[in-house]
Order: sequence, then C-alpha cells, then structure tokens
Amino acid sequence: MNNPLTVTMPEGEPYVQYEREFDFPVHGVFRAHVDPELYGQWIGPRDLSTRIDVFDARPGGAYRFVQSRDDDEYAFRGVFHTVREDDFMLQTFEYEGYPDSVTLEYATFTELPGGRSKLTGRSVFPSLEARDGMAATGMETGMTEGYDQLDELLARLPSA
Amino acid sequence: MNNPLTVTMPEGEPYVQYEREFDFPVHGVFRAHVDPELYGQWIGPRDLSTRIDVFDARPGGAYRFVQSRDDDEYAFRGVFHTVREDDFMLQTFEYEGYPDSVTLEYATFTELPGGRSKLTGRSVFPSLEARDGMAATGMETGMTEGYDQLDELLARLPSA
Repeated sequence: MNNPLTVTMPEGEPYVQYEREFDFPVHGVFRAHVDPELYGQWIGPRDLSTRIDVFDARPGGAYRFVQSRDDDEYAFRGVFHTVREDDFMLQTFEYEGYPDSVTLEYATFTELPGGRSKLTGRSVFPSLEARDGMAATGMETGMTEGYDQLDELLARLPSA
Repeated sequence: MNNPLTVTMPEGEPYVQYEREFDFPVHGVFRAHVDPELYGQWIGPRDLSTRIDVFDARPGGAYRFVQSRDDDEYAFRGVFHTVREDDFMLQTFEYEGYPDSVTLEYATFTELPGGRSKLTGRSVFPSLEARDGMAATGMETGMTEGYDQLDELLARLPSA
C-alpha cells in the first residue's frame, strides 16, 4: 500500500502545499530529485514518458524536460535557486504551453525514524487564477502517480 | 521632477505590485537591468553602494550582489528564469540574511509614445508574512531611490 499524498490549496492564497512520506531513507528521495537519470523515470503521471533535455541541479543551473504520450508533447523548464543535499531545494517551474506563468517550488526533505523520510513542498503561483487553473489540469493525479513511481524506483535501486 | 513609483500590496495576497514610468526609451531601461556595470550604479537606496559578484542575465544565469554602508553588508542572490530583450524578465530574489524566503520577480518593459517607457513589476512572496516583513524594511524607499538613480544614470548615458 502506497503512502498517501496530501495536497492542500488554502483558500485565498495562491499556494499548493503538499506532503508525502516514503519508506526509504532521505538520501534516495533527494537523489531522485537531482539525478536526471532517475528523475526522468518517476516524474509525472504514469501514461506520459519523460525525456530530459537539460538537468543541472545546482544553484544557478537550469533544467528542461519533455513529457509525451503518442504525438502530444508537454515541455517544462526552470532554474535551480538552492540545492542542499538531503535537505532543501528551491527551483522555478514553467509549463512552456502557458508561458510566463511561473511557480516557485520549495521542497524540504526530512529524515524520519526507521529509515523513512518525508517530503514537504510548496508551489507558489503568481496569482490565485494561475493556481486554480493548474489544479484543474489533474495536477494532483500526476503528482500521486509520480510519487508512486518514485517508490517503485527506490525499491529497485540497490543503494537507495 | 521624478516620475512617481506606484506600489500596491493587495490585502490577503502575498504580492507587491509596482509601476514606474521613465522619460527614456525602453531599451535603456531594459539595458540597465541586464548590464552589471549599469545595474550596480542604480539599484537600491542612495546610502548603500553596490558591488556585483556575479551577474549573468540570461535564462539559467545567476546573479549575486552586495550592498554596503560603513561596515554593514547586505547580500542578495538569485537566478534568471526568463530574459527577453526590451520586453520581459523573470528572476528569483533572495536576501541572504533571511535565507530560503525567496521571491519571484516579474518585470515587464513597455514602450510608451514620445520616447518614454514603463516598467511594471510583481514580486511574489512565499507567504503573506514574508511580504509584510519585507515591506517593513523600507523596501519602498529603496525602490523609489533606486529608480530615481536609474533616471540619473540614463540621463548620463549617451546611448540610452
């Protein structure tokens, strides 16, 4: 049984706040967020495959990846502002199909007892409209399936 | 007489919205935002001097600058997400003295008739508390004096 994803969208504030626990140590969860080989294997919903174009997970580094299903392609890009190992990441995030509406993504990685860990995130949108528009695209399903895929990836990794 | 700076802080929304007109063409105003030699001459309040450490104004580029008065130093850093000439910039912004509270800075440059231009900006804070805390530091005075210094700089630049 998978750990649940908790998503909160506070009324009147343009955030998405989320939390997810993992039955794996914090280092593997963090590594899957900064290693492009791993990132492309879990991010996004199950029915999309991911191609990484650029992925330089250090402060001032950029990333871009393209998700596709049949002939449909969705490209995303951003820059990393802060990357602290096993602790904290802060990056921008833009869906290229809806340009110039960019979110700031906070992610905090916490070690839990028993070799477990927790990821706490906040996406800050430029407006309430942008937040509600993104929420309507099935974002929560994509995140839920992505983290389930991350569990499966971590189970396969000998060093996680 | 200087053009006024208009700053709006909508109640219940963690933004600072601002607008400033310039009696100079859009290209000079934009250039003063991307050229580190120029940027260091106008940014911030009059009583601080600015040293540019890093300034690479292109998507995926980073910046860092240090402002000082006597023995006091204030360092700021971020990354550029979007830079479109004479049109639009989007970057992160962090005061290193208050780490991990990062704003996303939208700036739109518009040409006006008569060789004039307008800058419209939005700073998106991670929370209302962060917005109100920054507002209490005299941010508006610093911005007002900064844009007045930008006017003075543009008046000195032959090509602006």
